Amino acid sequence: MSGQLELNRLSLNQITTEQWNLEEAIEGCVRHEVPSISVWRHKLQEFGLKETKSMIQSAGLHVSSLCRGGMFPALHQAERKERIEENKRAIEEAAELNADVLVLVCGPAPDKDIAQGRNWVKEGIEEILPYAEEHGVKLGIEPLHPMYAADRSVITSMEEANSLIETLQHPALGVVADVFHIWWDPLVYQQIERASGKILGFHVSDWSVPLPDVFKARTMMGDGVIELKKLRQAVEQAGYHGPIEVEIINQAIWDSNPDEVMQTLKERFIQYC
Amino acid sequence: MSGQLELNRLSLNQITTEQWNLEEAIEGCVRHEVPSISVWRHKLQEFGLKETKSMIQSAGLHVSSLCRGGMFPALHQAERKERIEENKRAIEEAAELNADVLVLVCGPAPDKDIAQGRNWVKEGIEEILPYAEEHGVKLGIEPLHPMYAADRSVITSMEEANSLIETLQHPALGVVADVFHIWWDPLVYQQIERASGKILGFHVSDWSVPLPDVFKARTMMGDGVIELKKLRQAVEQAGYHGPIEVEIINQAIWDSNPDEVMQTLKERFIQYC
Repeated sequence: MSGQLELNRLSLNQITTEQWNLEEAIEGCVRHEVPSISVWRHKLQEFGLKETKSMIQSAGLHVSSLCRGGMFPALHQAERKERIEENKRAIEEAAELNADVLVLVCGPAPDKDIAQGRNWVKEGIEEILPYAEEHGVKLGIEPLHPMYAADRSVITSMEEANSLIETLQHPALGVVADVFHIWWDPLVYQQIERASGKILGFHVSDWSVPLPDVFKARTMMGDGVIELKKLRQAVEQAGYHGPIEVEIINQAIWDSNPDEVMQTLKERFIQYC
Repeated sequence: MSGQLELNRLSLNQITTEQWNLEEAIEGCVRHEVPSISVWRHKLQEFGLKETKSMIQSAGLHVSSLCRGGMFPALHQAERKERIEENKRAIEEAAELNADVLVLVCGPAPDKDIAQGRNWVKEGIEEILPYAEEHGVKLGIEPLHPMYAADRSVITSMEEANSLIETLQHPALGVVADVFHIWWDPLVYQQIERASGKILGFHVSDWSVPLPDVFKARTMMGDGVIELKKLRQAVEQAGYHGPIEVEIINQAIWDSNPDEVMQTLKERFIQYC
């Protein structure tokens, strides 16, 4: 359990090779013998769902996740209903691609009332859970770093995700743990343990000092301060043995040769994760 | 308690008018009838402690805080001892200036071991507390936003500060609550209440979307998403009725005419805080 990782656990989260379209990313995974991919919905649009499914099947790839559902809070009920409909489309796509999980980036509050934003997230997830279950899709709440609380997600810690999961009590609901978002939290190991059996995904990258940017902030594993192996082992002890996504949003990496990025991330995955 | 703020609560944290040296900041406070100032140690160096004290006394200003002590963690014991000595100098300066509190920015971990970093913070504070008490100086742990966990402080929430305070149980130790650092936390109101009687300072600014920068990230009150009045009232309910520092680290504000900044912050203080 605590031994060295095998490359068969590796999944390429598409955002890491942003310069590739979906077809190129699929070919890249095959060329570099990466067995799984995480698909982003905006990348999927270019080819359509049917063609995407066919390309992924032909390539023999496993889909570790679809990114992303969520974005529930909105001031007016009509807008919140639109978000729900959009999440249903995402659930249908996740089902069609046989993705392990639909990642939920829950959304910011539309105004200053963050507590109300959190309520709307709970209501939104509650509303789409039956639809997810009907389609055999798991929903994974991904807590985001508190630096994104105002523009991406009011769910900022494993503790909040766990509390939502325990409140909503649904077999289709779990959590996605991303080291970049959760590493700083003094409760992180306790909360990973609390999430036992409910972890639906695990994402790796690193936190460099200084941080290069607010959004394009992550760096390659090994170039930062995150205790990657320790977190990976904790997640495994909590019962997660599925694919591990490398998800790096970084301009310098996007400006690099993606084949070199693939080579590096495989080496770093083995060495640091 | 929940009524409108009076300008006699206002304190200028010097970093807000970074373009001014200490003498200019003191004159600015007098000119704009701001009764308190928070002094930064590197700004104090230019004039020396004696001259600074004399300028502040002549101006009739109150010193709401000295920024800053802290930065406890270091790999080697000799380095940690140096940090302790540096903190003792800061305590002496805070005593001489009659500052309400010496703000502690506790420091990052020197390596990947954030738990050990947190231990060193506890040990460091424990070690300087008797010296602070001898000098009649209060130490205020300022939890920093988790986005600064890797380079400024491993103490990332009011919960952590409160736990440290309860562990160390010392009359000279309390917490400084800065809205920019704590607003996102789902436990923030609960933890402010828990800090009752131990709050030694309150700082305001705002969190704009998108955030302009990682370090120079804060904005003028009213330009962001923070529920300033609600947080101020919570802090008052927890017994804090002292000066409220405006602490904004923002390049655009540093590039502005500081007299206009002073005018704006007074208006915003009344309107939004």
